[in-house]
Amino acid sequence: MNLIDPKIINDFPILERKINGNRLVYLDNAATTQKPRNVIDAISDYYNNHNANPHRGAYTLSVEATSLYDSAKETVKKFINANSKDEIIFTKNCTESLNLLAFSLSGFFEEGDEILLCVSEHHSNILPWMRLSKDKNLKLNYLYVNDEGIIPEKEYEKINNKTKLVSIAQMSNVLGTIFPVKKISQIAHEKGAIVVIDAAQSIPHKKVDVKDIDADFMVFSAHKMLGPMGIGVLYGKKHLLDDMPPFLLGGDMIEYVYEDHATYAEIPFKLEAGTQNVEGAFGLEAAIHYLEKIGLQNIENHEKILTEYAMQEMLKIPYINIYGPMDLEKHGGIISFNVKDVHPHDVSTVLDSYGISSRAGHHCCQPLMRYMGINASVRISFYLYNSLEDIDVFIESIKNVRKWLGYGS
Amino acid sequence: MNLIDPKIINDFPILERKINGNRLVYLDNAATTQKPRNVIDAISDYYNNHNANPHRGAYTLSVEATSLYDSAKETVKKFINANSKDEIIFTKNCTESLNLLAFSLSGFFEEGDEILLCVSEHHSNILPWMRLSKDKNLKLNYLYVNDEGIIPEKEYEKINNKTKLVSIAQMSNVLGTIFPVKKISQIAHEKGAIVVIDAAQSIPHKKVDVKDIDADFMVFSAHKMLGPMGIGVLYGKKHLLDDMPPFLLGGDMIEYVYEDHATYAEIPFKLEAGTQNVEGAFGLEAAIHYLEKIGLQNIENHEKILTEYAMQEMLKIPYINIYGPMDLEKHGGIISFNVKDVHPHDVSTVLDSYGISSRAGHHCCQPLMRYMGINASVRISFYLYNSLEDIDVFIESIKNVRKWLGYGS
Repeated sequence: MNLIDPKIINDFPILERKINGNRLVYLDNAATTQKPRNVIDAISDYYNNHNANPHRGAYTLSVEATSLYDSAKETVKKFINANSKDEIIFTKNCTESLNLLAFSLSGFFEEGDEILLCVSEHHSNILPWMRLSKDKNLKLNYLYVNDEGIIPEKEYEKINNKTKLVSIAQMSNVLGTIFPVKKISQIAHEKGAIVVIDAAQSIPHKKVDVKDIDADFMVFSAHKMLGPMGIGVLYGKKHLLDDMPPFLLGGDMIEYVYEDHATYAEIPFKLEAGTQNVEGAFGLEAAIHYLEKIGLQNIENHEKILTEYAMQEMLKIPYINIYGPMDLEKHGGIISFNVKDVHPHDVSTVLDSYGISSRAGHHCCQPLMRYMGINASVRISFYLYNSLEDIDVFIESIKNVRKWLGYGS
Repeated sequence: MNLIDPKIINDFPILERKINGNRLVYLDNAATTQKPRNVIDAISDYYNNHNANPHRGAYTLSVEATSLYDSAKETVKKFINANSKDEIIFTKNCTESLNLLAFSLSGFFEEGDEILLCVSEHHSNILPWMRLSKDKNLKLNYLYVNDEGIIPEKEYEKINNKTKLVSIAQMSNVLGTIFPVKKISQIAHEKGAIVVIDAAQSIPHKKVDVKDIDADFMVFSAHKMLGPMGIGVLYGKKHLLDDMPPFLLGGDMIEYVYEDHATYAEIPFKLEAGTQNVEGAFGLEAAIHYLEKIGLQNIENHEKILTEYAMQEMLKIPYINIYGPMDLEKHGGIISFNVKDVHPHDVSTVLDSYGISSRAGHHCCQPLMRYMGINASVRISFYLYNSLEDIDVFIESIKNVRKWLGYGS
């Protein structure tokens, strides 16, 4: 396993920035990622040369915008190994994708059916299902994790004949755990349940093949994978999307509209109301091209080396408490921790004074936090542009936190 | 009244493009608008220098992103003369804003209540209310227009004590009619109805003051006003927004989340789930700055001159049938028409061969089209970068359409 050539940091203009006089060490990649020049240039190129409303125009610019939009779908399709670009629905972010699903799958459920999540889910993968459960009188159930953030074998028995849907993140945005979604998908399908994979934290960092994991639906956001803000993806198997009523209603998703009734278009149009974000689609495509140029396997390896090194150095510091798996095979490039006696927000603020961007809080995972018996943690998360030197800066800085705050060491 | 300095076309890089060997004459501004350099540069600047997830971070970049996001809200607030930036909700587009409203206002209605629209509404301002009406057993009613696309006095009698909501576009995207929303709002409020103004077609072209028109809610999209795709606005009066349940559920919009229940944050957070599009907000702010630099009154005057000139020249052509008001005081910069014997799509295709971008179809207004007894029309729509010379190119080209297609003249 090798590190990625450190020269790629030159592709990311923001990494030249100084923060409080120090080099920016950006370790909040689980929240959003920085953009390479080719993505930023793609956005400018779109507006400088091709901008128009897609799908509806008979003129050159609109035909070009449509073609760029469709090309982006084709690229996403190949990236996740879907069967057809019509299985790719663009939304504004992962959150919209999950809300769309909970709304449009409503008809699949009957009173008493169960929806199964993991206790470590992000709020966006809990709240829409919670509302649906209340509306339709369903039971919301959770897989719990052990002290290392792993789901014990016995928990999978919760997937039973009453389970109609299992929705789980492939990688926890707090624990860094990589959950065995292929296995979960298999068990769930044996029981006849629909499987939704939240790939927001996984797909930027490793190859994800919807056929291999047999996801019925998969959601992710461009901005966590080098792409622009404002665009997300919902993948769905065609026969399932075909059966779903639309979520947002408006232009471009209809067949006929009368004053008192309407009929809707086929997928993907049915699920994409209003003017679509062609800029975002074009930017996401540029991001995927960049990721593929570097290679997803290389990115995964790179982050594994960084995570291993960071964990090893952090474990030497007695007043740091790390959450999540110690087995690095089950651990992606996210490390959550606390510093004894110091509030996570103070840790994050001190780290910032050294130029380090880290996250502190509940990470939109209050049920997990409550389950773990903590209110908040500090989180660092890596990406392809981070280096061993970044980890060194982080380790040196974290050693100063307690001193800085008057704890002596 | 004066035209805007034609040199401003140099601010719009795409206008240097050639289409089929001709200068681009972009006349599809009602669909989407082209972007000035300061907007394109703002987007690059955001990613080159400030990109982070707003609201959640204690580190410098996140604080900056939050501050940019809030500044954009402040700018929108001032632009429409709202009371507070908390009355500004960012969505992905006008369509999402209207869907959010129809969902979150559901609790305001009781069986038998009436929702009143205009027959000329865009599908995005019909379909969400139609779904709500079916779900809650409400009556969906329409104001009809006369042959000139004006709502006759008598129609306003439809606003009665049963009317709980009136939703209307300030300017029709087909007819170009500017509807008297201030008056409609006054009548509706007298009857106790909520007033929703779809300002998608008006706010890019004239000053719109929410206090003056007394809108309870107002919606619009950035991409129709020089801003980026992927961001829209929902304005709402604070006490109304306060009472509305959230639409999209996810991160950043909660107070507490438990495994079986949750409580939500105050506005605006309650209505903005997930990672917000800071790029879009920053781009929209840059667009508003550009519009204000030129001056909304100057833009309105400019388009009035163009519309008057275009109408005057088009009326000289015997085989052109123009829809919409002849009274230019009631007519914004949109002209819909048909060319005798020629399908609108063919007209648009021929115009494109001369470099002109025009729109052909039902313009997402099938009920209006049916009411007018046509299937489709051609539409040209103007903006601040269009010139009298653009109209001349259009008039010369439209005169060639029938010849081109073998009709002799």
